[in-house]
Amino acid sequence: MRKQVLTLVLAGAAGLAATSVIAAGGPIEHRKAIMQSVGASAGLAGGMMKGEIAYSPAAGKAVIASMNAAAHSFGAFFPEGSDAGDTTAAPAIWSDAAGFEAALAKFAEATGAAMAASGKDGPADLDAFKAVAGPIMGNCKSCHEAFRVKK
Amino acid sequence: MRKQVLTLVLAGAAGLAATSVIAAGGPIEHRKAIMQSVGASAGLAGGMMKGEIAYSPAAGKAVIASMNAAAHSFGAFFPEGSDAGDTTAAPAIWSDAAGFEAALAKFAEATGAAMAASGKDGPADLDAFKAVAGPIMGNCKSCHEAFRVKK
Repeated sequence: MRKQVLTLVLAGAAGLAATSVIAAGGPIEHRKAIMQSVGASAGLAGGMMKGEIAYSPAAGKAVIASMNAAAHSFGAFFPEGSDAGDTTAAPAIWSDAAGFEAALAKFAEATGAAMAASGKDGPADLDAFKAVAGPIMGNCKSCHEAFRVKK
Repeated sequence: MRKQVLTLVLAGAAGLAATSVIAAGGPIEHRKAIMQSVGASAGLAGGMMKGEIAYSPAAGKAVIASMNAAAHSFGAFFPEGSDAGDTTAAPAIWSDAAGFEAALAKFAEATGAAMAASGKDGPADLDAFKAVAGPIMGNCKSCHEAFRVKK
């Protein structure tokens, strides 16, 4: 996994002037935007799971695809030095990088399985959604406890 | 904007072994995961806008936050050389990098405005959602026409 990242990031650095573009802001802003998507998607998922919001396959699909996008992009925005600033990222992200990497891989495994099981139109009903969304949500608490500080 | 990316990517490369983690796969897989989230979120938004899916503020918020996350992360996954492979990224992304950058900045401007207008619980009703989601969706067609090839 690290070799792939090395290739990706070095390629990005080498071809940078011509190729890499990103919204204004630094890595802290970018990773916050991703985690806001995770939080909002979890809120929608929770509302449907609790029966407070009517389930729709399109909503189920949006939740799963957004969680999967987060699993694929979040880890790219923690360069050395970005532990300082307006962030709740825990020092363990850098001191226990292998642990953070494993937590993200576990997250991505759950989102990938959900994507594979969702089909083109999303999980057909709430039970089908719960079956794949449950394992995704199961990552929130443990990862936050280990790698997020409360401020 | 490019200077910020340069700092970010070079910092990432320098501190890589200890800090940068990402799901398995290369940049093509990562940017596809992000665009799948955009597509699924647009599908949910469209369903609500057309009245086919009941609007909920939580769904509106999830759509907006996921679009915003995409605007903040998508541009980081187009390193030089990633034009080859199973991708519909158009050569213009690299040959007209400034244009791609401008298109992403416009996308991020719309998502940022929607985030700011959404509040903690999301747009209160469908009209409020339409007012901020419309400008976001307005980016899809022009960006796809200029920077995506049909295969």
